[in-house]
Formats: sequence, structure tokens, C-alpha cells
Amino acid sequence: MYKFTPPFQNPSGSPIRELFKYLSEPGMISFAGGYPASDLFDVEGLQTATERAYKTPVRCLQYAPTDGIPELKQQLIALMAQRGVECANDELVVTTGSQQGLDLLLRVLVNAGDVVLTEQPAYPATLQALKLQQAWIVTVPVDAHGLDVDRLSNLLSSGAVTAPKLLYTVPTFANPTGATLSEERRIALLKLAVKYEFLIIEDDPYGDLRFAGEKVPSILSLASQVDGARDWVVHFASLSKIVAPGLRIGWTVAPKEIARRCVIAKQTVDLCSTPWTQATAAEYLADGALQRHLPRITAMYKRKSDALCNELRAQFDERLEFHEPEGGMFVWARIDGVDASTLLTRAIENKVIFVPGKAFFADKVDSCTLRLSFAAPGVDDIQEGAKRLKRAYDELRAVLAPSVQ
Amino acid sequence: MYKFTPPFQNPSGSPIRELFKYLSEPGMISFAGGYPASDLFDVEGLQTATERAYKTPVRCLQYAPTDGIPELKQQLIALMAQRGVECANDELVVTTGSQQGLDLLLRVLVNAGDVVLTEQPAYPATLQALKLQQAWIVTVPVDAHGLDVDRLSNLLSSGAVTAPKLLYTVPTFANPTGATLSEERRIALLKLAVKYEFLIIEDDPYGDLRFAGEKVPSILSLASQVDGARDWVVHFASLSKIVAPGLRIGWTVAPKEIARRCVIAKQTVDLCSTPWTQATAAEYLADGALQRHLPRITAMYKRKSDALCNELRAQFDERLEFHEPEGGMFVWARIDGVDASTLLTRAIENKVIFVPGKAFFADKVDSCTLRLSFAAPGVDDIQEGAKRLKRAYDELRAVLAPSVQ
Repeated sequence: MYKFTPPFQNPSGSPIRELFKYLSEPGMISFAGGYPASDLFDVEGLQTATERAYKTPVRCLQYAPTDGIPELKQQLIALMAQRGVECANDELVVTTGSQQGLDLLLRVLVNAGDVVLTEQPAYPATLQALKLQQAWIVTVPVDAHGLDVDRLSNLLSSGAVTAPKLLYTVPTFANPTGATLSEERRIALLKLAVKYEFLIIEDDPYGDLRFAGEKVPSILSLASQVDGARDWVVHFASLSKIVAPGLRIGWTVAPKEIARRCVIAKQTVDLCSTPWTQATAAEYLADGALQRHLPRITAMYKRKSDALCNELRAQFDERLEFHEPEGGMFVWARIDGVDASTLLTRAIENKVIFVPGKAFFADKVDSCTLRLSFAAPGVDDIQEGAKRLKRAYDELRAVLAPSVQ
Repeated sequence: MYKFTPPFQNPSGSPIRELFKYLSEPGMISFAGGYPASDLFDVEGLQTATERAYKTPVRCLQYAPTDGIPELKQQLIALMAQRGVECANDELVVTTGSQQGLDLLLRVLVNAGDVVLTEQPAYPATLQALKLQQAWIVTVPVDAHGLDVDRLSNLLSSGAVTAPKLLYTVPTFANPTGATLSEERRIALLKLAVKYEFLIIEDDPYGDLRFAGEKVPSILSLASQVDGARDWVVHFASLSKIVAPGLRIGWTVAPKEIARRCVIAKQTVDLCSTPWTQATAAEYLADGALQRHLPRITAMYKRKSDALCNELRAQFDERLEFHEPEGGMFVWARIDGVDASTLLTRAIENKVIFVPGKAFFADKVDSCTLRLSFAAPGVDDIQEGAKRLKRAYDELRAVLAPSVQ
């Protein structure tokens, strides 16, 4: 048998994907997935787009340029302009989902032992990618307004953290917390990046999914307000949450030299992302279908978020803490005195699942936390799911502290 | 500006992709690409397949299992059985082209400084991937019958090479040499792998493209004849050269534990390959369309290969050495006394391009070699291209040794 050595000596799979086995159980209600709602896919619009794309079949079927087909790049540059960001053709790279954007970037930037900063709690696949590169992960806590930039500033000015290569953040409707970094903190973060010469990795798959509150510009778009900051921002975006994950279309906006190196790495990694779905996405965007479709998603996600938050309040009262999200797909909650993994075991018996918060911590785990996604289940299931969660909680409390009940 | 460190300090792009800029020049004839013929794509068959796939739109549009959608895996397992290989569901991983299969495998297996063996000359993207993993590359020469297995045996038994982790080879219609490893050498190689405990990485994108000679079983299928050998073979296959690269469908067949780790790495790398084209490929294969389509490709590639070989012989006589291929897409040639890179400069002026052989060498470069692909250009262009190549050669000779002319 082949003998494995680090970093792949004892790898474990995604803690979220581990839960997928319960999805096939009849009657199971899932708050666990990070999947967008399947019933909101623009099935007809995408069919029209793919038919148009296939009118030039060779463009769909042959190898494509590694950085993306020109028609899609043009549309994505236009989309970024709508989002307040000017970017040149050689600053944008199409990737196989934004997940690949992160992987390419880390391979190009990070060597074993390099110091990297991440918000905490953070997206587990990011933590896994950083571990694969054998990075030294330093966490910065998140509150209701996103990354604690003051804390970061102290870590850097005190010398507690030196020479970080990059900081990873999902500043808008974060995964898992749903929090959005305030504009003031964004500007402060940009200034820190320039001063301490680290890259801000802004992962922005959910930015368009706002259903309440005021829009906050992306860190990348605010970079123009801070001298020299544009050199220190890499921005990931994706069609997975606003069109469909099945297209596998993400894109990276980065300073030219970083983008160029990502393209060279991508030549080795997969040569090019699927040209057929690139051409389909290009036609879909060119037609303006995204702008017509987005309000349908955000209206439904608002209904779902409201349903979840209202039912959680009705069921749990003060015993479950959370902030109502203004967009995205997630509610991040905390149940005092209960370990969320233990709660999950009870919850599964009650036919409801969620992700225990510990999956999102690189260190200093808060085991009372949990992530609930409202995107995929229907409104009725969301209400029923919250009720089941409460039943699981009550059962657990009865076992843990029977005398108190 | 961000400061880069190894292995991405001074990266250069693919030497083959560098040549693509000449493709847009009017009248240019290209023997350079590794692209299959666009005019042979089964445009209608794939359209039918994608329409059938889209009858279940969520399967196309939602995230898919990381190891591939079940319908496609089932078809690929059946295809492998037709090719004489039994493989279990958890021994097969669908990848974004077989290029990604190699990348995942190397990330899972190879650490900086590990000794790896490759045939030489070899596919440049493989060399690039090995360099990205900072592997220590040891080359083994190739002759008209593929990898020189005796030479490899000597390297291992003499202790000149110790503890290699793996050997990379394209044993059937190799890129770039077009050579096919004989069955005897395949068996001998399997025995060496078992004895010295290294993995044979069999990259097999061209195996179905045989248009002359007798079929040679894949190394993987022969592994059943050598005790314990199946544990030491990883096999890559792809639909890129036999259906269309634009699907981005490759697959890896590997021992279970290696396959499992590749899946875990893939969760981090791109979550899943494009489900839409996976579903399309599954429908295409289920319909038997591949078996109907393959004879059309091989018949045309035979015509093209014949056209190239005949015209090269007519033009160059003995001055250009090559072996007539029995399949695949490439003719590997040697022009004595002429540097192929210098020849390329003249060739470009004469509106024909090819890949100078040096791109395929990790060391001990033979600069008189060149790779000519006959897959993409039409038969008339192939004949004209060979004539132009001769003109470029004559011009160069006139400059290099005017007194001899």
C-alpha cells in the first residue's frame, strides 16, 4: 500500500458534506446545506441562454482560453462596473466556481509556514484550503458588524502577528455568520492592508442577495478611496448563488501580476473552466436575465429568512441568540449551555439538521453555536424545522438537567 | 507590490499556449495545438444529449457530489469494463478534464523534494504540475516502443534512483512521441512498480484513437496479470479527445484510499466538476453515441496522419526522421543539424507552426526534435503545411551553411 505523508497523512472530508447522508432520509428538513434554492433556478432563462450559446457549437465544445472565453469576460467586466468596480481584461480570471479562485490564489501566494489571517468563524473549505497549503492560520474574531478590525489593528501594531501574507474575509452576508462589515471598517481594513502590506481576500458570493437594509460597497470598490489599496485587494465572485452552481462559474479580480500567475497555475490545474457553461453564462448575462431574475430570489429569501427568524423567536424566546440577516442565506445562532453537536444528534432523531458551529472555527471553538441556512427549504418546512429544533432542544435539556425542568 | 516566493517566483506560461497567438494570423497552418479536430465534433449528438440531460434541470444546475454524478460514474464504469477494467464506484473519480486528475493526485501524493519519474520527452503540463509541487524529477528515455523499461530497471536496481513515489507515462500514442508501449514492457513495468513500490500513473487520453496496428491493453487492465500490481496503478482517462474538450470531463481510476483522498482535495479545489456537462456526457454515453462516433474520428485521423507522413517523406526524404503513428494525434520528428526553435521562426514567416521539441524535455534537451499534430488541420492544409515546413527548412539551411548549398 502507498504510504501517505503530510499534508495528506490524515485528511478528513468536509464536515458539512458529512451531513449530506441525512438528506436522503424521508421527511428530513435541512438547514445544513450551503446550497441555493433549487426551485428558484431560472430553468427557462438558462435553457434559452444555452440554446443561443450552442448556435456557435465549437465555442462550447473546444478548449477555451485559460482565463475565460472573451464573451463571458466582457459580461463579467460589465457586471463589476455595475457593482462600482472598474477592471481591466487582464485583471479578471474566470474560474471553476470561486472555490477554485481561492485554491489558485493560495497556490500562487502561500508557502508552508506562511502566516495568513482569517475571520473567525469562517467558511470551512477556506480553512481546509489553507491547511492544504500548510499555512499558519491566525484568526480574527467577527461580531455583528463583521470582522473586528480594531482587534486586527492591535494584533498588527503590537507585533503579536507579523508579516501576514493575506487576510481572508466574506464581508457581506458572511458564511457562517450572515454579518456584513460596515463601510467604516472596510476603509479601516484597507488602510491596514496598505500599511502592513497584506492582501485582503474579499470573497463575495452573496453580495447581490440583499433583501433588507442599505447596500454597502464591496471592499474592492472602496479601494479607490484609499491610496495604493487597489494593489492589496483580491476579489472573488460567483454565479453559484445568484444563477446556478451547476454552471461552475466564478471569477477573480486581482492585481495584474497576481491574475497572471493564477492563470499560469490554472493551465496546470484544469486548462480551462467548462467553455459550454461559460458561453451559456455569457448569453444569460448579455440578455439582462440576471437583473430580471435577482428580485425573484431576494424576495423569496426574505420570506424564508423572516419565517425562520420569526419561528425561532416564537419557539426559543431568549434561549437562542441570533441577528436577523439583511441578505445572504444564513442565520448564525447561539444556544447557551448546549453543545450544538449533541443537539444535532437529537435533531436528527427529530428529522431536522443544521451545521454545528465548531466546523467554522480554526481554534477557540464556541461549541454552543450553529449555522442555519434558510435558502433551500420551503417556508412551511422552515417553520416546521424550527419547531423540531425546539423539540430536540427540549429533549436534550430534559436529559442534561432533569431536575431543572 | 506583493512579493512572490517559490515555487511561484518566476513562473512562465505553457510553451505551447505561447504559440496560440499565431493562430489568428490569416492563412496560418497549425501543427502546434493538442486540440482535437473541431469539425469532427458530434454537434447533433451532443445537442440531443444535453436536451435529454436538461429534462432533469436541477441535476444540471445544482451542486453535484464531488466524485461525480452517479449517472455518469455508472457510464464510465461500464466504459472501463469495455476496456477490460473492472472498477468499483469508490475507485473512480470524475474530474475537470484528466488534467485535474493529475493535479489532484500530485497534491495528494507529492511533497517538495519527493523523487518522481517521468518518461522523456513528456507532456509539458505534467512537468509544470510536478514543478508546482516542487518534486525532484528524474527522466527515463522513450524509444519507438515507448518507455525504456530496461533503462528504468537499471536505474532502480543500481540505486541510481531510490524511493521514487511515482512514474508518469502516456503509454498509448504518447504526447509528444506518438509511441505505444509494448505489452511486454507494460508487464515488466508493473513488476518493477510492485518490487520498488512506486505508483504507475497511466495517462490514457488517446487510447481509443487507434487507426492502425493491433490494440495493446492498458497498463491498468494488465495489472490483474501481475500479483499485487493493481495497488500500484492510477489511470487517467478523458472525453476531451474522443467526444469534446468543452465538456471538461476526465476521470481517475485509483486504489480506494488514493481515490478517497483525491475527492477530499477536490472538495477544496472546485467542489465538483460541472454537473450540466456531466449529465450531458452521461446521456451521450448511455445512448451509445460514443461507439457510433469513434469510427468517424479514427477514419479521419488516419487520413490526416497518412497525408502528413506521406507529404513529409515526399518533401524531406531522409532529412526528417519520424515513426508513422498507429493512432492518437501526433507525429514526433527529428531534423538533424537544425535547431527546431530556429526553424520555427522561419516556419512562422512561411505561415506554418509546430511545437519545438525542447518544450517536452525536463533535462538533456534534444533541440532537433519537433511535435507535429495532424488532428486539427484539414487534409489539404496538412499537405500545404508540410510543403511550407520544407520551404522554411530550405531557407534556414541556406542561411546556416550557404557554401554547402
